[in-house]
Amino acid sequence: MALLVMKFGGTSVADLERIRNAAVKVKREVERGYQVVVIVSAMSGETNRLVGLVGEAASGAGAQAPSFYDAREYDAVVASGELVTSGLMAIVLQEMGVQARSWQGWQVPVKTTSAHGAARIESIPRANMDAKFAEDMQVAVVAGFQGLGPDGRVTTLGRGGSDTTAVAFAAAMDAERCDIYTDVDGIYTTDPRITNKARKLERIAFEEMLELASLGAKVLQTRSVELAMRNKVRLQVLSSFNDEPGTLVCDEDEIMESNVVTGIACSRDEAKLTLISVADRPGIAAAIFGPLAEAGVIVDMIVQNISEEGRTDMTFSCPIADVAKAEKALEDAKARGDFNYRELHKDEDVAKISVVGIGMRSHAGVAQRMFKNLADDGVNIKVITTSEIKVSVLVDRKYMELAVQSLHDAFDLDRAP
Amino acid sequence: MALLVMKFGGTSVADLERIRNAAVKVKREVERGYQVVVIVSAMSGETNRLVGLVGEAASGAGAQAPSFYDAREYDAVVASGELVTSGLMAIVLQEMGVQARSWQGWQVPVKTTSAHGAARIESIPRANMDAKFAEDMQVAVVAGFQGLGPDGRVTTLGRGGSDTTAVAFAAAMDAERCDIYTDVDGIYTTDPRITNKARKLERIAFEEMLELASLGAKVLQTRSVELAMRNKVRLQVLSSFNDEPGTLVCDEDEIMESNVVTGIACSRDEAKLTLISVADRPGIAAAIFGPLAEAGVIVDMIVQNISEEGRTDMTFSCPIADVAKAEKALEDAKARGDFNYRELHKDEDVAKISVVGIGMRSHAGVAQRMFKNLADDGVNIKVITTSEIKVSVLVDRKYMELAVQSLHDAFDLDRAP
Repeated sequence: MALLVMKFGGTSVADLERIRNAAVKVKREVERGYQVVVIVSAMSGETNRLVGLVGEAASGAGAQAPSFYDAREYDAVVASGELVTSGLMAIVLQEMGVQARSWQGWQVPVKTTSAHGAARIESIPRANMDAKFAEDMQVAVVAGFQGLGPDGRVTTLGRGGSDTTAVAFAAAMDAERCDIYTDVDGIYTTDPRITNKARKLERIAFEEMLELASLGAKVLQTRSVELAMRNKVRLQVLSSFNDEPGTLVCDEDEIMESNVVTGIACSRDEAKLTLISVADRPGIAAAIFGPLAEAGVIVDMIVQNISEEGRTDMTFSCPIADVAKAEKALEDAKARGDFNYRELHKDEDVAKISVVGIGMRSHAGVAQRMFKNLADDGVNIKVITTSEIKVSVLVDRKYMELAVQSLHDAFDLDRAP
Repeated sequence: MALLVMKFGGTSVADLERIRNAAVKVKREVERGYQVVVIVSAMSGETNRLVGLVGEAASGAGAQAPSFYDAREYDAVVASGELVTSGLMAIVLQEMGVQARSWQGWQVPVKTTSAHGAARIESIPRANMDAKFAEDMQVAVVAGFQGLGPDGRVTTLGRGGSDTTAVAFAAAMDAERCDIYTDVDGIYTTDPRITNKARKLERIAFEEMLELASLGAKVLQTRSVELAMRNKVRLQVLSSFNDEPGTLVCDEDEIMESNVVTGIACSRDEAKLTLISVADRPGIAAAIFGPLAEAGVIVDMIVQNISEEGRTDMTFSCPIADVAKAEKALEDAKARGDFNYRELHKDEDVAKISVVGIGMRSHAGVAQRMFKNLADDGVNIKVITTSEIKVSVLVDRKYMELAVQSLHDAFDLDRAP
């Protein structure tokens, strides 16, 4: 019997009316003949409430020291939100005449590493669940985001972990597909708020999805897409609030026809920092980016260019929110004598635009077309980086919408392949 | 090393400030050299919220049929409240430098019967917890009210079940004492709202506590007192909100001196029903009280007296809230021809007063003193029942306070033995 995994996020189970809507979708798949594993998140807002309580508990009454807490206790508290939704969903399904039961992470068990708060799923033995499906169970409602550590205690997978739970179950149970129900109805060629020509993709390759996800199309958790790619789990992203088909994230072999460029991602909150006149010696990049990593600065693009004999300029981008941390880390390193630089230029007024497509591998000239198009529009490119299936540029933020609209037209993204 | 069980109810862990207050009490016992098992309830209001969600889930969207639900799912949802408090309490204790960890019911495991929603604890294997105490654990914070059923699923013990969890742990772990922290500071000779002469008892025997609990002094869950009595677990009832000593509920062997009467309970919401002229034949009591039990009427006192040849009057008391149900059940039975009666007299204006004390066993005349005292005050007694350590009467409700005050004086309850 074919098995389907269906995952409902926090906004899709925010109250009982929405849980009922979700249950109707589950029942429909049961009626189509599927066994179903449903993965549920906590009701929206609930995880934040629990995290807040843990923070309050750990902060002490007037404690001066910075608060710390035992991640095992954090997990024990925070994982409780999903237990509530899984039980409620099972009851609602039973009311609809579906043989459903809830599963807590430790009951399956979802075996994870010991990294409390950010555990990774190691295995999902299917014997228990198979036995119940063999009896009379039609739907297993699993509490997402959690598992059982080697110490016998509850672990959580980190934020967005329910997507990962869903993909891991799809892999372990040989599911035909893993449907991720969310508050958007699929993956678009670009942000529909920027151009109404944005088109919902019928299919997208895992690699493209990864580039788009990390570039700001925050529909699917990156880790879950990686896991799906590795296990060849077909993912469908679709809306909880309508019955439209969504977007299938799949192996590129399943994609017959595609445009050279599949989508355009953009990110508004970027900053560009340039260290002017750094000694150009072996190890200089490590000397610079080591302290930045330690300071928790998320460095994205890096460009190095020769400025004068024996000296170089080092440019990198990071989220605007990280600029102060970056400055301090660099100044501290300079003060320690780790390296020297004449000046630090900050440009906090940039945006990143990326064109992504597996078609690029076999089509030369995508970067050139992109640059030409931007030039024709009078958009100055400040930094360029490329990968096999992506070209990214930094531009002045004020040009971001113009550039995306123009590139969307240039690469014919409003037309299906 | 001596071990103590400390139980904090919902109002004692209602927010983080109160959890901190409770933790201070726990830390003090650790500093006195005890290993401590802390049993926590859900934050007050939380269990009601979860029960409400289950009800909402089970009621269906516009369903006409009366709602039902799977008690296993009810348990999975409702037991989550205690998981939150146990984790938070562990974090707060750790912040205070105490080696604490949380335990969920299934982790101990607290093995229960399969009666979901009203399970009974069958055993608490102590190996896991002993091993952790032998390592470095000073305090085990256990989620109360729950356990693990034979089906591998979460069970709950029914309302007030955390008291039972506490006593069961005290028995299983050979605790020196089981301290029940609550919002009253002990057991009083009578309701202090009725007379300011009410005195906090230093000690009370299990049997007396059982009579007082079932009579309306709702401090301890009856089931937990029974369990404590059976296992000779010394219970202390004391306040979460001050540092006064509480009341020790213990075996009567531990009570050296006691008054003949230990306490006076009263209950305002009683009704007296009398079936006039019932055929006095074998089986008539069963014929009458069977249908009442089936209708869910909680019958308390029963008195039968001969009224005329071959006929009898049958009087019983029940909560006012059950009167309508009782009337209907009796009329239906009469209509079916199960038995006959001439009239049904209702008196919904009565109260019950009970004097309780193990001393009665060896002192005759308590009932007589009670009746005399009431008579002197002009209080008419409507029904009398007695047991080995209790005398209960029904009186007109308007006399209740007067009677309690007067009896409290008559039996010298304001004076310690």
